[in-house]
Amino acid sequence: MDPGYFDCNATTALWPEARAAWVEAVEQYWMNPSSPYRAAARAQVRMEAARAALAARFGLVPERVVFNSGASEGNNAVFAHWARCLPAEARVGVSPTEHPSVTEAARHYFGDRVRWLELGAEGAVSVEALGELLREGRLAAVSAMAANNETGILNDWQTIAGLCREAGVPYHCDASQWIGKMPLAGLGDCGIVTACGHKFGGPRGVGFWLLAPQMQGFEAQRGGAQEAGVRAGTPDLAGILALEAALRVAESVRTRCDAAERDRFVRGLCQAIPGTECVGEGMERLWNTTCLILPEFASVRWIRALEKRGFYVSSGSACSTGKEGPSPVLAAMGLSAGQMRRAIRVSSTWSTRPEDWDALAAAFLAAYHAMKEEAGRSGNEVISI
Amino acid sequence: MDPGYFDCNATTALWPEARAAWVEAVEQYWMNPSSPYRAAARAQVRMEAARAALAARFGLVPERVVFNSGASEGNNAVFAHWARCLPAEARVGVSPTEHPSVTEAARHYFGDRVRWLELGAEGAVSVEALGELLREGRLAAVSAMAANNETGILNDWQTIAGLCREAGVPYHCDASQWIGKMPLAGLGDCGIVTACGHKFGGPRGVGFWLLAPQMQGFEAQRGGAQEAGVRAGTPDLAGILALEAALRVAESVRTRCDAAERDRFVRGLCQAIPGTECVGEGMERLWNTTCLILPEFASVRWIRALEKRGFYVSSGSACSTGKEGPSPVLAAMGLSAGQMRRAIRVSSTWSTRPEDWDALAAAFLAAYHAMKEEAGRSGNEVISI
Repeated sequence: MDPGYFDCNATTALWPEARAAWVEAVEQYWMNPSSPYRAAARAQVRMEAARAALAARFGLVPERVVFNSGASEGNNAVFAHWARCLPAEARVGVSPTEHPSVTEAARHYFGDRVRWLELGAEGAVSVEALGELLREGRLAAVSAMAANNETGILNDWQTIAGLCREAGVPYHCDASQWIGKMPLAGLGDCGIVTACGHKFGGPRGVGFWLLAPQMQGFEAQRGGAQEAGVRAGTPDLAGILALEAALRVAESVRTRCDAAERDRFVRGLCQAIPGTECVGEGMERLWNTTCLILPEFASVRWIRALEKRGFYVSSGSACSTGKEGPSPVLAAMGLSAGQMRRAIRVSSTWSTRPEDWDALAAAFLAAYHAMKEEAGRSGNEVISI
Repeated sequence: MDPGYFDCNATTALWPEARAAWVEAVEQYWMNPSSPYRAAARAQVRMEAARAALAARFGLVPERVVFNSGASEGNNAVFAHWARCLPAEARVGVSPTEHPSVTEAARHYFGDRVRWLELGAEGAVSVEALGELLREGRLAAVSAMAANNETGILNDWQTIAGLCREAGVPYHCDASQWIGKMPLAGLGDCGIVTACGHKFGGPRGVGFWLLAPQMQGFEAQRGGAQEAGVRAGTPDLAGILALEAALRVAESVRTRCDAAERDRFVRGLCQAIPGTECVGEGMERLWNTTCLILPEFASVRWIRALEKRGFYVSSGSACSTGKEGPSPVLAAMGLSAGQMRRAIRVSSTWSTRPEDWDALAAAFLAAYHAMKEEAGRSGNEVISI
């Protein structure tokens, strides 16, 4: 990936190994895995091997992995399923910092029966407040992501999973940003996990669910018997093999990644541009992610100024682009409109080097001085914020 | 594709041009099209160019093309939409020969409010009977495919579209088997069209809807603003570009294809193996498809015997494999259980040559004689049927 690419949480370039797996599949295993001859059964065998390899990474039996087209499909289907299976008056607890494919699906299927979960002071779901709701029997299901896409803040999903299990309530964990960056152990203990390939160097258009063993009636697409009847449709074998290869690579390199360089970058930037803040700085966060509130100038100007210098950052979720208003994640955390207008998300890749962080810091500083100078020349600071 | 591959209706190998488009995309346009910098906007521009090129093939404005993960998603979403938008007592007319992703979605969302449409004697939807139902105001929506996957029989979808338009009733046409093999003109006049790439030499996991201009509230996945808000989720740009390239190639070669060689094969086979029948022989059918009822031996034995000789055929829809019971398509056409057990679908590709058909006929004959001889030796014909 381009060393100036700091938007890994939006999407990733394909690992060469994932690309090779895709090409091998379209050459060697292009037949329909469901076709009744042996040559096609080879494709089926290859697909089941990929499912087993993926499942093994989570310590699960293969049947618990069901492939789909990505996390937006995965998240939507969870709420459609709950709407079908839970009692008519059931309330679902949803973290307000979830991805739009969770919050909007929750609103669509549950309307005012969504109970937005309380956050702690620094933006993670409060396990104390959630525990109380569960003990009081107020929730029929819970959805809280593993790691936030905009801030990198981690929820204590292990504890949440335990609380939900004790309460006998299904728990959905969107692990799209976690998988490929953090250890996989324990994720299989959440009731339903959703994820997609393109957040860890796999292809677009393919993702998966990890389903609870006792899950009955989960049916995302009707038609064929593919994916054990959960999701009909000819499976995208090439995408599946590429996804599995991508996770294999990400798992092998992520252990060399930590937050030290990211934190050094943040400290340096806060000194160089006084008034810069880091959202959730004291919290456990993904090692690659930081959400900065700059002291001046709107996000869009920072993005352009940094791109001019060869760096790619964003102002929040790419899935929120094109929508009006500020980031719902930052709004739920209580940031002001002014702060949200100056938010920049920086998310590094597995191959970002210390010198790439240094270069990014220098670009921030150069951009800052250039914008200050421009503002001074125009004598009108107001229009530039 | 392998010259012995006669299962094109199950899936196709990727055209080299589609593969090249995919590889180009993952190299050149891997950024998230929704990301806020210019480098990502290039991916957006490339995607919109593909949408415009695809739309132009149907004579439509680009906004009417919405990409998805394939026809099973597309078909399911149509019925979910109708269930949400039509009155509670609304009845939908569905052809009984539809793909399982239509019939099962219809059953799930409409239950006994599905009115199974009457077929003519040879298996196409009776436009007379449908016209009467529509004039009597008995249907709130209609779903009838363009070309059948198992028999190749064409519905008179142009007339059906006109009848539905006159009655003010939405019409869904699953054109998965039509597109890439038959002229595209007029399909845009159906209310909703569904299709997928891997039936015409494109990749798995990507398809599209053609939506009616006045369609309101069609929302297949909630979350981001992608695909004009109809389907949230990071678009599979590589898949989309490969799909568009595939249709470009299929459109350029399909005009050289006709049914003459297929028909010569069928005539020869019926003479060589007396008692062989061809389903819908007198009907307008896809040029590449024939559904044969052999006089003896179960489908599965034919499939194995032909594979041993280098030929790949099937017994029906790959999406029905793994389910119990005979083909619902052939059952709806009134074939007996005995006939259905001896059904073989042969579906050629764009590159099948006359000598490939000759070789397939020879393999059928050799397989027949081998199975006859084996049956004679065992002296027990019953177990072999």
